[in-house]
Amino acid sequence: MRAFMVIPMDENAPIKVYMTKKLIGVRPEDSVQEACKVMVEFDIGSLVVVDENDSVVGFFTKSDVIRRVIVPGLPYTTPVKEIMTKELITVDANTPLKEVLKIMAAKRIKHILIREEGKVVGIFTLSDLLEASRRKLETSIAAE
Amino acid sequence: MRAFMVIPMDENAPIKVYMTKKLIGVRPEDSVQEACKVMVEFDIGSLVVVDENDSVVGFFTKSDVIRRVIVPGLPYTTPVKEIMTKELITVDANTPLKEVLKIMAAKRIKHILIREEGKVVGIFTLSDLLEASRRKLETSIAAE
Repeated sequence: MRAFMVIPMDENAPIKVYMTKKLIGVRPEDSVQEACKVMVEFDIGSLVVVDENDSVVGFFTKSDVIRRVIVPGLPYTTPVKEIMTKELITVDANTPLKEVLKIMAAKRIKHILIREEGKVVGIFTLSDLLEASRRKLETSIAAE
Repeated sequence: MRAFMVIPMDENAPIKVYMTKKLIGVRPEDSVQEACKVMVEFDIGSLVVVDENDSVVGFFTKSDVIRRVIVPGLPYTTPVKEIMTKELITVDANTPLKEVLKIMAAKRIKHILIREEGKVVGIFTLSDLLEASRRKLETSIAAE
């Protein structure tokens, strides 16, 4: 017998159903240390970088901070524009969840930006998957 | 109709079936920067800290580096023993996967250490969940 874990997410549903719409952003000139304080305050693993027109011009994760700041020994005062990823990996808001997970697994990324009509409108992260499995577990427990 | 995502993991199986047995460790005296180089080299988000008897005496994640080194502005030369978590969160190797996920979701952690007979023998991370969903997706594609 093979057993499976069932997560209450429709793998054919568009990712916009599951994405987080509240994007937390910093400015290109903000320092790495200021940005890290924002990550800790909001308990998130990535930030978008937005310019004065509120356009997303960059993105970076905690991994990027480790790789691009601590490993090469840059100062904490380095502006985020110098370490952010400028070529954003995005998927369209109508992409099915299963395709998004496939892309994330293939690229080994834990966060992906969602775009709609050329604009970044949300983010989907691995933690969202854990959250969904938790809801399922709570339902199972409630039903016992 | 409600749709579900099915992940080929048995939620009642003991976590030892799914854990990663290869633990990557650093020494308590290693600097934060040296530890970060190890994280980048192995593409991992956490490290165990092992003493000269190969006992696990601490643990830390990329989030801990952000929170305990960059935010307070400690130097990169800080030894990891000063920032590591000493009170390890562990689960027994025979704990069912679903219980482990429940603990991870409740504590909002992405990595958990697995112990067997009082010794740390492995780690389970959220990425393992993504890996499993990827295998399922590949199977679906192969069957189309």
